[in-house]
Amino acid sequence: MSRSSISSKSVIKVHGTTTRHVNDVLAAEEPLEIRLCFGAFLQRKQQNISVTMRTPGNDFELATGFLFTEGIIKEAADIHSIKHCNGLHENVVKVELKEEVTVDISKLERNFYTTSSCGVCGKSSIEAVRTVCRLPAIKNNELQFSSATIYTLPALLRSTQAIFENTGGLHGCALFDTSGNLILAREDVGRHNAVDKLIGATLAQSLFPLDRYLLLLSGRASFELIQKAWMAGIKIVAAVGAPSSLAAQMAEEVGMTLIGFLREKVFNIYSGEHRIIISDYENSYQG
Amino acid sequence: MSRSSISSKSVIKVHGTTTRHVNDVLAAEEPLEIRLCFGAFLQRKQQNISVTMRTPGNDFELATGFLFTEGIIKEAADIHSIKHCNGLHENVVKVELKEEVTVDISKLERNFYTTSSCGVCGKSSIEAVRTVCRLPAIKNNELQFSSATIYTLPALLRSTQAIFENTGGLHGCALFDTSGNLILAREDVGRHNAVDKLIGATLAQSLFPLDRYLLLLSGRASFELIQKAWMAGIKIVAAVGAPSSLAAQMAEEVGMTLIGFLREKVFNIYSGEHRIIISDYENSYQG
Repeated sequence: MSRSSISSKSVIKVHGTTTRHVNDVLAAEEPLEIRLCFGAFLQRKQQNISVTMRTPGNDFELATGFLFTEGIIKEAADIHSIKHCNGLHENVVKVELKEEVTVDISKLERNFYTTSSCGVCGKSSIEAVRTVCRLPAIKNNELQFSSATIYTLPALLRSTQAIFENTGGLHGCALFDTSGNLILAREDVGRHNAVDKLIGATLAQSLFPLDRYLLLLSGRASFELIQKAWMAGIKIVAAVGAPSSLAAQMAEEVGMTLIGFLREKVFNIYSGEHRIIISDYENSYQG
Repeated sequence: MSRSSISSKSVIKVHGTTTRHVNDVLAAEEPLEIRLCFGAFLQRKQQNISVTMRTPGNDFELATGFLFTEGIIKEAADIHSIKHCNGLHENVVKVELKEEVTVDISKLERNFYTTSSCGVCGKSSIEAVRTVCRLPAIKNNELQFSSATIYTLPALLRSTQAIFENTGGLHGCALFDTSGNLILAREDVGRHNAVDKLIGATLAQSLFPLDRYLLLLSGRASFELIQKAWMAGIKIVAAVGAPSSLAAQMAEEVGMTLIGFLREKVFNIYSGEHRIIISDYENSYQG
């Protein structure tokens, strides 16, 4: 947790008819611009490709993850350098790609997959995303998680959400292995940023492939989050909140396991139930 | 609530070690593209200005509210016509502005205020938003809400959130008068879309000015939502969740009252406390 990820403010707490002044801790929210430099020598181009409202901290992971989940880069090694614009411009990250990396200019158009006319009118959004993705459809390997393990995950994520505990203002996400060990967690005011930071960190730390892990989301599962998980090869996504219709549809079509409304002893399986083993919660819990 | 705002899906509900098949209702999420036609006769231009993932329904309100809160139009009368592209393209809304309406092309750039370089590097985001806004700073009129009234609002919003109750997947927002009467409510998978729909509806229904009302948000208060509320002249925003640092900062700078963590008998005031009267909850509740 970066110091700049939170800020303190004096507020008036009203309780019934009493008031008192207290210090409240807020989750920081600031814009981040991602600038991309790409192309061969003597033909280098620079383009502002994204501005997002994010919680400062892990900015390089965010930029890396964004470029990967949008299909601009296919591995961390595509990046030559990544840095803040300069000391005064902490809210601008400049990513230099290696000269030999080919960038599809059309992908640098705003909103990427969702803005393509095919994504709205002609083809479905899911098909549009498929044309962007460089990964094959999710293969059905032996990966399985037990229900007893899954029940334990939200509490493990909360225990790592340092900022959330203080501010109540952040979305969290984390990767877990089949034994329920937390591999990595990230948080942000924007849920898509939290997932980009997480995936960017796994790229930087050479944790790929991610098809061994379950991705837990602290809130709802939107189409965009399922698309990002899919780009990273994740086979099981579990959300504490509700999935949207398009999230459930996409998960089903690509063969992903999607869990929603995950609570201490209950969850819904929306697709890919063959990856879930219903196991004895009480025994696992006590053992 | 439109029929297409929800969809039904057969899911497996896991409870402890038991499973059963149930029908679950999901909040619909689909892309919406907004196309703008503008300019004088013989110089008409058409431009795709936004694609957002939204819950279908109230699409015209969403487009109207988006154009207004982004500073593209200043009143509903700027719009000549608004329609879906055609029967096959329910996810494209085409907005024809009147010929005499001047559009600042630079505002049609992607991400609007946040993408302007001044918004990231030089000037602060708040200043960048200020340059877009056509409204004066919030004036300090006599508007006041009692704490007893404020405590009652979340339950009133929930009672109108038909889709949320079914799906758990939607953000809601609503306008209330000083007596605690609910004026209008909207919901969407995207919290910014919910607010755009609400503000678009008030424009279409000639409910302006909105400086008589309190805006309640079912979740967290981000910078973007405070910016939209400010564009609509709203003076009091109350969020059930946490505000971000930039949301609190902007509310304070423009003179808006911001309430967060609103529960049955408790809330925090982040700014503009002179608009809140601490009143006897028990008496009001029983009386």
